Amino acid sequence: MKVVADLCIVPMGVGPSVSPYVREIKAIIDASPLTAEMHANGTNIEGELADICRLAEACEARLHELGVQRVFFTMTFSSRRDKEQAMADKLRAVQ
Amino acid sequence: MKVVADLCIVPMGVGPSVSPYVREIKAIIDASPLTAEMHANGTNIEGELADICRLAEACEARLHELGVQRVFFTMTFSSRRDKEQAMADKLRAVQ
Amino acid sequence: MKVVADLCIVPMGVGPSVSPYVREIKAIIDASPLTAEMHANGTNIEGELADICRLAEACEARLHELGVQRVFFTMTFSSRRDKEQAMADKLRAVQ
Amino acid sequence: MKVVADLCIVPMGVGPSVSPYVREIKAIIDASPLTAEMHANGTNIEGELADICRLAEACEARLHELGVQRVFFTMTFSSRRDKEQAMADKLRAVQ
Repeated sequence: MKVVADLCIVPMGVGPSVSPYVREIKAIIDASPLTAEMHANGTNIEGELADICRLAEACEARLHELGVQRVFFTMTFSSRRDKEQAMADKLRAVQ
Repeated sequence: MKVVADLCIVPMGVGPSVSPYVREIKAIIDASPLTAEMHANGTNIEGELADICRLAEACEARLHELGVQRVFFTMTFSSRRDKEQAMADKLRAVQ
Repeated sequence: MKVVADLCIVPMGVGPSVSPYVREIKAIIDASPLTAEMHANGTNIEGELADICRLAEACEARLHELGVQRVFFTMTFSSRRDKEQAMADKLRAVQ
Repeated sequence: MKVVADLCIVPMGVGPSVSPYVREIKAIIDASPLTAEMHANGTNIEGELADICRLAEACEARLHELGVQRVFFTMTFSSRRDKEQAMADKLRAVQ
């Protein structure tokens, strides 16, 4: 199922400052073939839901290597059947 | 990746009352082998993230059969490596 | 604005096990006059959005007293104008 | 409580295409004094939680004027006590 998702990954238990971990997550997302754009509270990602889930798992595995024992994720996504819609279209439609 | 998730499925474009659609979603989730419990704002589900995503896709496919063109999902989930934790344990730990 | 909300509070930076903090949050929510029910991934709360936000702030203040420097919250909520709907009605409608 | 929030507003029951409604929401958010930036899946907003909730209510009131009977919202937000952090800082810290 093709979706436009907003994924937010929260490393728990590693202090209030998580930017070193977010940089690692960003590197993994940037290296993936999925279209993605980071914003102040998460990353918008366009692709098959299964691929986005695999990407979330890859991020968790990397965080675990760095010593993170627990990770909290929020993900919103929508799918539509009446037309193809890319992330860029969504923004363009409301300008 | 084993997670405890909270999945909420919002059928868009079919009027303010969505309970007939939620009943269909509930039937699909009840028929799945995953441990799940519906609450007032979503369903807690325990299992592999990939299986939960497949379940979300099955719900979307059924909604599409019923005429829903667009579906919005929210999913939060957490994974932990320091110990196994089931949904029931999470509630028990805070009583 | 009257809403049915699902509030999840994630204490960051205090280790993978957060149940002592969740117990404190539960005590604050239980002591409030709002209708609320905890589930495995959050708490469903019925009331005015402004009151629910004040409750979230009270939980954050208590977590800060306990040494938590950063708190992440997720909240979904819906409002409807076509009829009054309580949390209990939402579940009853889909049985 | 000062937070950095990600707010997503989903008009229900008005067809799969919601961009006319999102444009109205964008106009209300742009006219508010809060720092805000729309992205493909929502809007990042920086400010007092109570002010952000009032903004969400203003958006719902406008949607209701336009005939929307039910609105679903997702909001994630985080507060921190160890330092002031603005939206722009969050992105800068991970570049």
